[in-house]
Amino acid sequence: MYPELFDKLIEHLRRLPGIGEKSAERFAFFLLDQDEEYLTEFGNTLYDLKDKIGFCPVCGFISDKNECELCKDENRDRSKILVVSYSKDVIAIEKTKAYNGLYHVLNGVISSKKGIYPDDLNIEALLKRIDGEVKEVIVATSPTFDGETTALYLDKILNSKGVLVTRLASGLPMGASLDYADELTLIKAMNNRRKFEG
Amino acid sequence: MYPELFDKLIEHLRRLPGIGEKSAERFAFFLLDQDEEYLTEFGNTLYDLKDKIGFCPVCGFISDKNECELCKDENRDRSKILVVSYSKDVIAIEKTKAYNGLYHVLNGVISSKKGIYPDDLNIEALLKRIDGEVKEVIVATSPTFDGETTALYLDKILNSKGVLVTRLASGLPMGASLDYADELTLIKAMNNRRKFEG
Repeated sequence: MYPELFDKLIEHLRRLPGIGEKSAERFAFFLLDQDEEYLTEFGNTLYDLKDKIGFCPVCGFISDKNECELCKDENRDRSKILVVSYSKDVIAIEKTKAYNGLYHVLNGVISSKKGIYPDDLNIEALLKRIDGEVKEVIVATSPTFDGETTALYLDKILNSKGVLVTRLASGLPMGASLDYADELTLIKAMNNRRKFEG
Repeated sequence: MYPELFDKLIEHLRRLPGIGEKSAERFAFFLLDQDEEYLTEFGNTLYDLKDKIGFCPVCGFISDKNECELCKDENRDRSKILVVSYSKDVIAIEKTKAYNGLYHVLNGVISSKKGIYPDDLNIEALLKRIDGEVKEVIVATSPTFDGETTALYLDKILNSKGVLVTRLASGLPMGASLDYADELTLIKAMNNRRKFEG
């Protein structure tokens, strides 16, 4: 019913994660309403994306394919590497301003369900980075089944390298009601309980 | 923190209706994961959009800027014109297969709040279509405040043209529970009650 090009646009938009027919249609009509400049610039970013954006060869963080700013930053504590699954996790940690070490991005998690194994992840490059300077590797994969699997795997291979391997704490999220916490979180919070400081 | 081009892509995606920072970021990482072909084709549709897509000069439905298929269709009942606010409303009505007349798309609704007045809508072209052949104009704007305002306005100017002006019925939606209906809908349903047919 719609003109062919418009149908194509809807089809492209439908592929975006979590976007169904209705939303894709809404996006397409919104785009038709925008000025030429925005559409051309948007189109340009799509054209250049694969050419210009890739991953830092050292840590795997999204970059212009060269060593990223985080790796180059001389003010960072080079004795610590914090390992995350995705680039956006780096942004989440950076926002806390509570960490000043280096990062390593796996760009995925081990998942037997999805057929993702250690060789598919950016682990080889991590092992290469464990020289004398690095004292601690903090594993910050998500506390999900796949995230835990990945963490256990990393712990196993890194321990033999003579480096301290730690894991982010699990427990009740700040501001949460105890009665809304799920059982697994409560069990973690009980097992990891600690004395008051002070 | 992200490379400049990636930040730009996130910014472009954020402008889509209902899309916040998190979703735009998710879309951007999804796009980075796609193959070159899809990205190029997606980019092409954005480039060509304004050039190739516009509105049917007769009815205002989205088209390749020429008279649309609906207007050209000789099998349609040319004595009826159904007036809707947006092109996607045409699709919704066509899906029902319950209507076989012509359409007219206003491409908006009268809204004093948004500063949209009759002159901003595709009404002039509608008046031109009221020749001897058209017997009925069915006003199918949404039963919202702005939709009702638009409907009343159309009724006023079309009545003087000697054409029958009708409005889609308002009432309880099929399958709905009476106790979940809002008051206005209930009042409409009461006022528009009718005798059983048969």
